[in-house]
Amino acid sequence: MTRKFMIINGPNLNLLGTREPEVYGSDNLSDIEKYTNEQLKLLWNEPVELDWYQSNIEGEIVNKVQELLKSDYEALIINPAAYSHTSVAILDALKTLNIPVIEVHLSNTHLRDAFRQQKLTAKSSTIIMEGLGKRAYLLGILSQLIK
Amino acid sequence: MTRKFMIINGPNLNLLGTREPEVYGSDNLSDIEKYTNEQLKLLWNEPVELDWYQSNIEGEIVNKVQELLKSDYEALIINPAAYSHTSVAILDALKTLNIPVIEVHLSNTHLRDAFRQQKLTAKSSTIIMEGLGKRAYLLGILSQLIK
Amino acid sequence: MTRKFMIINGPNLNLLGTREPEVYGSDNLSDIEKYTNEQLKLLWNEPVELDWYQSNIEGEIVNKVQELLKSDYEALIINPAAYSHTSVAILDALKTLNIPVIEVHLSNTHLRDAFRQQKLTAKSSTIIMEGLGKRAYLLGILSQLIK
Amino acid sequence: MTRKFMIINGPNLNLLGTREPEVYGSDNLSDIEKYTNEQLKLLWNEPVELDWYQSNIEGEIVNKVQELLKSDYEALIINPAAYSHTSVAILDALKTLNIPVIEVHLSNTHLRDAFRQQKLTAKSSTIIMEGLGKRAYLLGILSQLIK
Amino acid sequence: MTRKFMIINGPNLNLLGTREPEVYGSDNLSDIEKYTNEQLKLLWNEPVELDWYQSNIEGEIVNKVQELLKSDYEALIINPAAYSHTSVAILDALKTLNIPVIEVHLSNTHLRDAFRQQKLTAKSSTIIMEGLGKRAYLLGILSQLIK
Amino acid sequence: MTRKFMIINGPNLNLLGTREPEVYGSDNLSDIEKYTNEQLKLLWNEPVELDWYQSNIEGEIVNKVQELLKSDYEALIINPAAYSHTSVAILDALKTLNIPVIEVHLSNTHLRDAFRQQKLTAKSSTIIMEGLGKRAYLLGILSQLIK
Amino acid sequence: MTRKFMIINGPNLNLLGTREPEVYGSDNLSDIEKYTNEQLKLLWNEPVELDWYQSNIEGEIVNKVQELLKSDYEALIINPAAYSHTSVAILDALKTLNIPVIEVHLSNTHLRDAFRQQKLTAKSSTIIMEGLGKRAYLLGILSQLIK
Amino acid sequence: MTRKFMIINGPNLNLLGTREPEVYGSDNLSDIEKYTNEQLKLLWNEPVELDWYQSNIEGEIVNKVQELLKSDYEALIINPAAYSHTSVAILDALKTLNIPVIEVHLSNTHLRDAFRQQKLTAKSSTIIMEGLGKRAYLLGILSQLIK
Amino acid sequence: MTRKFMIINGPNLNLLGTREPEVYGSDNLSDIEKYTNEQLKLLWNEPVELDWYQSNIEGEIVNKVQELLKSDYEALIINPAAYSHTSVAILDALKTLNIPVIEVHLSNTHLRDAFRQQKLTAKSSTIIMEGLGKRAYLLGILSQLIK
Amino acid sequence: MTRKFMIINGPNLNLLGTREPEVYGSDNLSDIEKYTNEQLKLLWNEPVELDWYQSNIEGEIVNKVQELLKSDYEALIINPAAYSHTSVAILDALKTLNIPVIEVHLSNTHLRDAFRQQKLTAKSSTIIMEGLGKRAYLLGILSQLIK
Amino acid sequence: MTRKFMIINGPNLNLLGTREPEVYGSDNLSDIEKYTNEQLKLLWNEPVELDWYQSNIEGEIVNKVQELLKSDYEALIINPAAYSHTSVAILDALKTLNIPVIEVHLSNTHLRDAFRQQKLTAKSSTIIMEGLGKRAYLLGILSQLIK
Amino acid sequence: MTRKFMIINGPNLNLLGTREPEVYGSDNLSDIEKYTNEQLKLLWNEPVELDWYQSNIEGEIVNKVQELLKSDYEALIINPAAYSHTSVAILDALKTLNIPVIEVHLSNTHLRDAFRQQKLTAKSSTIIMEGLGKRAYLLGILSQLIK
Repeated sequence: MTRKFMIINGPNLNLLGTREPEVYGSDNLSDIEKYTNEQLKLLWNEPVELDWYQSNIEGEIVNKVQELLKSDYEALIINPAAYSHTSVAILDALKTLNIPVIEVHLSNTHLRDAFRQQKLTAKSSTIIMEGLGKRAYLLGILSQLIK
Repeated sequence: MTRKFMIINGPNLNLLGTREPEVYGSDNLSDIEKYTNEQLKLLWNEPVELDWYQSNIEGEIVNKVQELLKSDYEALIINPAAYSHTSVAILDALKTLNIPVIEVHLSNTHLRDAFRQQKLTAKSSTIIMEGLGKRAYLLGILSQLIK
Repeated sequence: MTRKFMIINGPNLNLLGTREPEVYGSDNLSDIEKYTNEQLKLLWNEPVELDWYQSNIEGEIVNKVQELLKSDYEALIINPAAYSHTSVAILDALKTLNIPVIEVHLSNTHLRDAFRQQKLTAKSSTIIMEGLGKRAYLLGILSQLIK
Repeated sequence: MTRKFMIINGPNLNLLGTREPEVYGSDNLSDIEKYTNEQLKLLWNEPVELDWYQSNIEGEIVNKVQELLKSDYEALIINPAAYSHTSVAILDALKTLNIPVIEVHLSNTHLRDAFRQQKLTAKSSTIIMEGLGKRAYLLGILSQLIK
Repeated sequence: MTRKFMIINGPNLNLLGTREPEVYGSDNLSDIEKYTNEQLKLLWNEPVELDWYQSNIEGEIVNKVQELLKSDYEALIINPAAYSHTSVAILDALKTLNIPVIEVHLSNTHLRDAFRQQKLTAKSSTIIMEGLGKRAYLLGILSQLIK
Repeated sequence: MTRKFMIINGPNLNLLGTREPEVYGSDNLSDIEKYTNEQLKLLWNEPVELDWYQSNIEGEIVNKVQELLKSDYEALIINPAAYSHTSVAILDALKTLNIPVIEVHLSNTHLRDAFRQQKLTAKSSTIIMEGLGKRAYLLGILSQLIK
Repeated sequence: MTRKFMIINGPNLNLLGTREPEVYGSDNLSDIEKYTNEQLKLLWNEPVELDWYQSNIEGEIVNKVQELLKSDYEALIINPAAYSHTSVAILDALKTLNIPVIEVHLSNTHLRDAFRQQKLTAKSSTIIMEGLGKRAYLLGILSQLIK
Repeated sequence: MTRKFMIINGPNLNLLGTREPEVYGSDNLSDIEKYTNEQLKLLWNEPVELDWYQSNIEGEIVNKVQELLKSDYEALIINPAAYSHTSVAILDALKTLNIPVIEVHLSNTHLRDAFRQQKLTAKSSTIIMEGLGKRAYLLGILSQLIK
Repeated sequence: MTRKFMIINGPNLNLLGTREPEVYGSDNLSDIEKYTNEQLKLLWNEPVELDWYQSNIEGEIVNKVQELLKSDYEALIINPAAYSHTSVAILDALKTLNIPVIEVHLSNTHLRDAFRQQKLTAKSSTIIMEGLGKRAYLLGILSQLIK
Repeated sequence: MTRKFMIINGPNLNLLGTREPEVYGSDNLSDIEKYTNEQLKLLWNEPVELDWYQSNIEGEIVNKVQELLKSDYEALIINPAAYSHTSVAILDALKTLNIPVIEVHLSNTHLRDAFRQQKLTAKSSTIIMEGLGKRAYLLGILSQLIK
Repeated sequence: MTRKFMIINGPNLNLLGTREPEVYGSDNLSDIEKYTNEQLKLLWNEPVELDWYQSNIEGEIVNKVQELLKSDYEALIINPAAYSHTSVAILDALKTLNIPVIEVHLSNTHLRDAFRQQKLTAKSSTIIMEGLGKRAYLLGILSQLIK
Repeated sequence: MTRKFMIINGPNLNLLGTREPEVYGSDNLSDIEKYTNEQLKLLWNEPVELDWYQSNIEGEIVNKVQELLKSDYEALIINPAAYSHTSVAILDALKTLNIPVIEVHLSNTHLRDAFRQQKLTAKSSTIIMEGLGKRAYLLGILSQLIK
């Protein structure tokens, strides 16, 4: 049976590849999607389905997280980006889930601005991964596939 | 003449009954709407109209609050939920109103996370009520009906 | 059977009506007692007994709260006034009770001095209501009568 | 050739003229648009095009800022209003631009609430102007026209 | 006509003369009362009546302050001692008065413990005097006699 | 000659045995008094007199501490309870004593609320003991008997 | 009639052009004075007189600000530089003026050291402008000329 | 023999009578000087010489304080005004004196801006008096004349 | 050619399996070592050598990190445990390395004590992973194997 | 059967008797060991074995605490000295024990430097005793012997 | 060729020898000047010229620092005294220099008042030396002579 | 007679020359030892013996400091490196010495990370020197040789 994962990306991640490429790399989000699918096939031989979603609007991310309540996704990989630091609303939505939440950040936020040190959403995540660049989504999914 | 009240609910309140029922009770928002209408009829014999609105999107709540500027609602009962702690935008919208604003929280927020102790919206509310569970909306409206 | 409620008022509330009437209204505490009784009769047709107590002395309020441990009061409505911000002793006394504690403040404390933002006693209250003026006690009791 | 400027206004600025007129003046946003165009013609004799946008939704402002990446606007004048104090998402979007960002506030924010002292978006702005009232947009544009 | 002043002393001031005499001097409270009367006669030739009160109980000081509301005292000289730093209740009581409040401290509190730097009661005082030792009460009264 | 010790208990300790027995044990204050006397006789063969006092009123505790100034008590064992965290007045009273002050807390306060981490009275105590439960008074006295 | 403006520059601005030219540009203060006069003539056809003053001494700036009290200057443009962050004395002097005060900073201070985030003088300014480089004085004056 | 006192006034006090008269009164500094001399003669029959000094420059006040080291002034009355909150240099100068330092503030600073709550100079003063208005200097001198 | 990785474990990790098994699982460190090797073989078909080290002594961990400077390890996986929060010495040692540093924590530290929120060592790490339990080391290594 | 207790002493306690004798007394650690044994025999007639350990190295103390996991010691008396304020590693080690931990400090730390007010290890201790001088170990053991 | 060094001394250093001699020694500034010259001759056989300057006025020190920009001094030795803690203006002036700045303090400031812990000027100094007493200037110069 | 000095170096200083050479220079610790000896001979003609010690382990540094108690070293030069910021244990050990302690840092720590601003060990040092690079040890010793 195909195992399913939802991947939610927060604000400005639709600009990946364009925005500060020296920090975030030159791949855009669909390059990373392709990369993740290809690598996953090499590493794992069960069928895996990945659904990718991106929004710049806090409340739409809340909506998308809520949709997972009545779905057959096995886990959520979320890169809340800026909303990681400011959104109690997404934190509250994540808390309602009973599947694992893997929060990923492309860069190591410990090296960035002081106001990025508060990570509200991390309080409702199961796993946090930072600094992995484009490998973040792949390793987030692998963390759920490996027994 | 029918007296009219607007009731605005913030993010994740559309999940009431599902989300942490041991904290928020097992009634969903339409159960509470029904409960509020029924109790109100028992306690008050004038006709009262209640309009219920819910959104997960901060800016849509700002929009809805602004609509009250040119309306005949007598008061606003608002449960800003997570946005209570983070939204200067809703605070600014509430400040433009010249009808009473009754802010309600289902639980007693003084017993919750440190980041929930800041209540920005409370600075533009007339009345604050916390910890009443499903009775919150009913008592909020009664506070305006009682002379 | 008559339902019984204790109402405790903290320091300087014996001056109500005299002290900053533009903030607290011109009714004194016995006007409010009378108002509460009258309104309650209009809204609720079961017999309800309200016992009112006021003291300026922190320890006497602790004593009075302790008396509730062996009594048949159904709930405590308390307006701790200044002691809300400074009294761990009253907080500890309230914690020993196993009946609901409804803490009321006549004004909305979120609009007042910084040192009034700490509300120690709220950590042992079930329900908090602020900004209701003289309606505070009435709505506090109604919150317990309504099912 | 016509020189083009984008002007983005944040939450509640659609209420200008109505909201606290003693603070913000009695002109609404389209009065200010008209005023800005007229004054500009008096002061500057090259053709200048101004595109005005307003939204109450944080993520829509992020979207609009992103649109500038592939446009021929010469600079962005932004009045982030409440989102100035809370939005890391808009800050991140502004950072992706390679045209000047002129942040304007109608009032002098140094005289307002403590929570308005944090100005997140100012970290990605080139120029900040406060306290100019309706002249803010005009002077923001002039700052780019003057060599 | 005799001019009347109330003098209230807070906790542990009944020990003056005994407690840390190197800090507070070796005069006890009645020595100071005598000293104040004698000096006053030398300096001022109108009749002046001074009423001295001391209590270790916060709420009793609140009571005594409230008594001034319906009296012919011209001003209150208060040495709140420890309660200066912790009592919102006395602060609230002082706020109800419409006569001058002269707060005195025998020592200069700026040289003492960090927790003595918060002076809550000073927010409701007209005049503050520190470091005068036994001369504090005398100068407090003179401040009201001198035109 | 009989050696004498004063034991002062602060607010809500008259409820011991009733209040949160899982934290404070099921013995009330007179059970503990009895226990302390019995154990002391087993461990020490000189006559020892223990005088127990309890009050919920801060200022009465100040009064009782002051009485020790002219007495033949060898040391004071004090459990200031809630007043440990808020009373500068008791701190000041303790400072006037020239006998050892042994401050005891039944539970380990380091594991409790943030506002209980400030221990004002500890600054005027000779010895602090926490977490001993009913053994606190016994060990406090033993600390003075042992050479 | 000639309109008159005073321009006060604080410490180290006499070094402009020399000091960190990559931050502050290579123009010195008299270059900027010349630039401002020339541009002003192009943009505005009424006669305008600008008086420039610079001092490294806090109290001399206080003196100069006080001179404006009995003068016919229409507004003050001030670049308090370092004293913006440390001088309550200049803040107090500015407060005595009843003409507009336009505070300018050549760079955007939000991007600089933490200790430069406190801007004391901004509390007595009407308008604040940051990040305009040499255009700061010109736009400051324009803000007063434009109706 | 004539007793001598130095009176030093800090920044902006040369504007007294002009600056915020509703706060500081309508008397200027020489009115107050005259008032102080006249009242002193009424109250005290020994010859007293008062030398008045004012400067807006921090370092000049340091110089003037240092002059007292080799003089026959009996005490210094100083109103450091704004420098009270920011000057470690004046604090250090005051510390070198071995005559009493009486620090006076015309208004009660506890009711003013947060940044005025830090009073550096008070750490080297013997006596602090606030809120006395024009009577401040007179009472400061009396504090030294009275035995 | 065999690829080599060093794995350093900090204080108390030698107790894994014994210490709070409900938090850290019942596997001890050698169980995890075995698990990591086995899983790695299933997922990756190049030869990989893992060297495991554990110490409770901060300075010994510094020593071990320094050894990597002259070695052929490809990356360091480190679980600094308690020293993550307190060791500037390990932070400084990690900074000297020019191979990737993958910091892992078995649990999600965002849900733990306040003093665990400071993560000094994370400032010198390339990648941070939290909340993965025994999978932490395996995913840390995979992050380096995957291209 | 002999009852066994481990006593661990942290850094610089090997210097007792030499280091600041006016604070810590003139007894060295072996004097105190002897004193403790002698007094214990006088007070308790069961055989008691005390094992004393001292180290200046944080990690060695972690090691020693871990040894207790598989031993028959009845309780641990620990004087963590400086490591009380800085060691999360010892805190974590203590947490693994299931015997009582009695933390002792020879002096009353509430009277010492600000950085000594944080007591990390106290969060994993059962009992804390401060200010007892050489009697600390004796009373720590007695607390476990007394029923 | 003679090597030249400027030595700037801040406020109250003209009182050296008089002010707190137990802290700062009994030598005055010209004693130290003489001492420095004599010792320098003993230790170094090249000609060295030292120019000494002292001022109590912050802005005069800024002026003097600026003079160094067009001079042949090899380095600046500065003892900013009180202005070390409060002067952003001197900090900014020092930043413009391109010769080494050696900041010296006669005492060890880590042992002094909390408000002396902030050392603004140290951010623009190359070398900081504290606690050397009269040797400070000599060692500051030696640091530049030694290769 | 040969004069003797102990020189203790803290963690990671054994990497000098390798670690961030742009910050710390390319000399390793034995280069600096050689440099110090050679320069010392040029500057001072009495025999001087320098004993160099380095350790990465906090407790070993405590041990080494304690050894100085019974030795004929004239002074201790210590570069505590990272432990300067975190070690109360070394601070306590240094306090036991009765010879001068000269703390040196190769770089100016005021320009580095916020967590390096706390310098615990500086509270027990006589002299602090920062920013001298390899000259630090030489000048530290000279400070003791010069009279």
